[in-house]
Amino acid sequence: MAKKTAINPTRDQNYPIWYQEVIKHADLADHSPVRGCMVIKPYGYSIWENLKNILNKKIKDTGHENAYFPLFVPLSFLEKEAEHVEGFAKECAVVTHHRLERKDGKLVPAESAKLDEPLIVRPTSEMIIGAMFSKWIESYRDLPLLINQWANIVRWEMRTRLFLRTTEFLWQEGHTAHSSKSEALEEVFKILNLYKDFLENYLAIPTLIGKKTKLEKFPGAEDTYCLENMMQDGKALQAGTSHFLGQNFSKSSNIKYSDENGDLKYAWTTSWGVTTRLIGSIIMVHSDDNGLVLPPKIAPLEVVILPIIHKEETKDHVLNFCMELKEKLNQIAYHSKKLDVKIDLRDMRGGEKKWSWIKKGCPIILEIGPKDIEKNNIFFTRRDTLESNSLSIEDFLNNISKILDDIQKKLFERASKFLKENTFKMDDKKEFYNFFSKNKNKGFVEAYFCLDENEEEKLKKELSVTVRCLNLKESEKEEKCIFCSKSTKSKAIFAKAY
Amino acid sequence: MAKKTAINPTRDQNYPIWYQEVIKHADLADHSPVRGCMVIKPYGYSIWENLKNILNKKIKDTGHENAYFPLFVPLSFLEKEAEHVEGFAKECAVVTHHRLERKDGKLVPAESAKLDEPLIVRPTSEMIIGAMFSKWIESYRDLPLLINQWANIVRWEMRTRLFLRTTEFLWQEGHTAHSSKSEALEEVFKILNLYKDFLENYLAIPTLIGKKTKLEKFPGAEDTYCLENMMQDGKALQAGTSHFLGQNFSKSSNIKYSDENGDLKYAWTTSWGVTTRLIGSIIMVHSDDNGLVLPPKIAPLEVVILPIIHKEETKDHVLNFCMELKEKLNQIAYHSKKLDVKIDLRDMRGGEKKWSWIKKGCPIILEIGPKDIEKNNIFFTRRDTLESNSLSIEDFLNNISKILDDIQKKLFERASKFLKENTFKMDDKKEFYNFFSKNKNKGFVEAYFCLDENEEEKLKKELSVTVRCLNLKESEKEEKCIFCSKSTKSKAIFAKAY
Repeated sequence: MAKKTAINPTRDQNYPIWYQEVIKHADLADHSPVRGCMVIKPYGYSIWENLKNILNKKIKDTGHENAYFPLFVPLSFLEKEAEHVEGFAKECAVVTHHRLERKDGKLVPAESAKLDEPLIVRPTSEMIIGAMFSKWIESYRDLPLLINQWANIVRWEMRTRLFLRTTEFLWQEGHTAHSSKSEALEEVFKILNLYKDFLENYLAIPTLIGKKTKLEKFPGAEDTYCLENMMQDGKALQAGTSHFLGQNFSKSSNIKYSDENGDLKYAWTTSWGVTTRLIGSIIMVHSDDNGLVLPPKIAPLEVVILPIIHKEETKDHVLNFCMELKEKLNQIAYHSKKLDVKIDLRDMRGGEKKWSWIKKGCPIILEIGPKDIEKNNIFFTRRDTLESNSLSIEDFLNNISKILDDIQKKLFERASKFLKENTFKMDDKKEFYNFFSKNKNKGFVEAYFCLDENEEEKLKKELSVTVRCLNLKESEKEEKCIFCSKSTKSKAIFAKAY
Repeated sequence: MAKKTAINPTRDQNYPIWYQEVIKHADLADHSPVRGCMVIKPYGYSIWENLKNILNKKIKDTGHENAYFPLFVPLSFLEKEAEHVEGFAKECAVVTHHRLERKDGKLVPAESAKLDEPLIVRPTSEMIIGAMFSKWIESYRDLPLLINQWANIVRWEMRTRLFLRTTEFLWQEGHTAHSSKSEALEEVFKILNLYKDFLENYLAIPTLIGKKTKLEKFPGAEDTYCLENMMQDGKALQAGTSHFLGQNFSKSSNIKYSDENGDLKYAWTTSWGVTTRLIGSIIMVHSDDNGLVLPPKIAPLEVVILPIIHKEETKDHVLNFCMELKEKLNQIAYHSKKLDVKIDLRDMRGGEKKWSWIKKGCPIILEIGPKDIEKNNIFFTRRDTLESNSLSIEDFLNNISKILDDIQKKLFERASKFLKENTFKMDDKKEFYNFFSKNKNKGFVEAYFCLDENEEEKLKKELSVTVRCLNLKESEKEEKCIFCSKSTKSKAIFAKAY
């Protein structure tokens, strides 16, 4: 007989619907009446706030400053970079009027308020930030200029999925200008590694880093470097990107500086970002058939306390104990903050209440009844393993941080093992085609690839497989391309992707 | 001879240009190439981050949760509330297409990608949040629903001014639903007082609270309550609003709940917000002819250290001392955080450097040279008074929090005195007209007013004067209206306003 699970269908039965159900039961987000736009509900938004706080600090600690730039990009600005505009023209929200009027009783965009030039709702901010950089930068003394923005972004997606692909999403976008190519490249890799550290040490997600092929890079960039995660269905999810823009954007936005000798030169620029998509990655990497599983470092609550009250006469006793316990837990430092704890007082059955927190992925769930208090015991359940244990209050308080750290560590280990076990080295084209043709197979394929673009297009079309990333450092010796046997030093990770 | 000032013109010479110059010299914000949209530069943005952090905590501590809703509002949603749509239809950005295409070589909105229904870039979110509330609320158990959102807002303004009136601005908007009128009203006043406390105790801005007249209230609200500040030119600035929406919006958005008896009822809703406009108020309330003055509790840096290095051989000695001093200062707690301190190492003349920080409004500026170190002295300047003093290092470290608190207190006292001295009680219509007709007069007038709308329209037209707010509690006995001598219990604050 099949095991009963809180989420139906299970991952094995129907992964895409399982994903939606996990979100629904954890109350993370909702569809809105605006096509392709999501509503991030309080519990989901507080995960984003946690990610944001951690990442914001890392970005500031590496010398970047936050600022805010306009939501709108004039069409002519977008057009300044030929490759860039082609990349975004097909999926952008276009503002054409600035007033409504009644016409035959119907409210319509007012003809008299048609804009001379349409405005694009930012699909990314290189062009509008570039225009300001051009104004602000005069001499080498103004460099490097290291700016970050937290903002909303609009890309008109035809097929949307909560967190993974929505018309509007939230992100952070860094934009920097430098006086040399090497310094700009250093920045690109500094951020790539900062993101990797953030993903692995806070989100507990093992992360591959590499370079995108020409077909997959950011429109207008010289090179795009990326971070790739493996979901539990073996598909890849791009978790972030760091772009080396060369002088392409400084030329189109006229970002020039005078160097030490007074000579006018174009700056070298970079841009980089991660989005609310990360929440999709967290869900798909860690969650199980009983719902959301959250790494403690980014969970809105590390601990939830469920008072077990069977009789009215023990109610006050139990509640007082829970409140005292909460106070004590709130004092405990956990990774540069204090523990966040909630007592759940909702009027519902104990089992139902416990399962609601399992489905919400709270790392540690306490059930406190009169007998536990009598025995000086804390009865707790770990969300990752669903194992329950009892500890004396003193031992529990002394060990809670360690238990949380252990959950965090185990989640990373489990995901790392999964990534390793589902990544296959191949050097045979037939094996490659076989692997990706069968639905039961899942995972990444690592193979030498000569970077032929026709081959890449063919894979996309025939197998829905893309090159997720190329090795950052070329191999020392040449090997044969898996498709054409040409010699190459490029090794690629191939996968189906979100 | 006129005193030399860092900002020219002075407040007396030309207040509007003085305001722009303060922003420019403090490097707070910049005009963007997008009509009416500003760029908030890092120093200005970090003030916003400080405001946001403080206010966010207050909002959460009173039981509200953050969430995120779509940027776009479908036109038909805006139309559901008749008064509401009329209020915003004249100044909204309208998205009509979702793709661009080349036509005769020119990039234009694609005809084939015209939206069936235009989308409005949110001028406020009652209608889109209302649609979700309607979906989420079923029974009285789901109430109260207390939601807050930090977001960007677009209102197409014809005449814009940095921070005060821009096409795009940032804000926080609270939206709540309740099962009774009294509970909704309680929420409205809870927030009004929360804002007042925030403005007075953090921004050091004395704040009047009151009710808007029908002409000035939020489109669609039953009643709008507001917070009004007095600028140094005597004009009023509306610093925030808290709206009692009655059942207007729950009826238009169909927000119903079943009560304890299973009867279906409309919820009572509220909304409330403050914006980046607050930065405009801070500038205009506290700054002087030498530039920005910031209340310490919201300053990006409380202390800046300027090393005075005349000779190369004392350089290391001075820098080491400054770094040790910074470390010590960074350990000092100041209102639930640690002091933010910077050592300014820029290569420029000492006087120029000091003035740059005066113009940026840093509360305390230290100048540290070899002689000070020898004498164990800290030489510091208070930004509010520009007075300089020396204290022993020990005394300085022991007293820095007190000095900052004193600056905060003095700024509030100064602004309170100004508000009091420039608020005039009047009961004579002629005196009233005389007062507001002469440019040299500045300030608020407090007078009894019968609430006649024709009179209100006339004042607006003839004197550019509006009712800023009405007394929250009606007077105990009736008095005569200043304009028509009718008996009334309503007392109003009149002023010209931003």
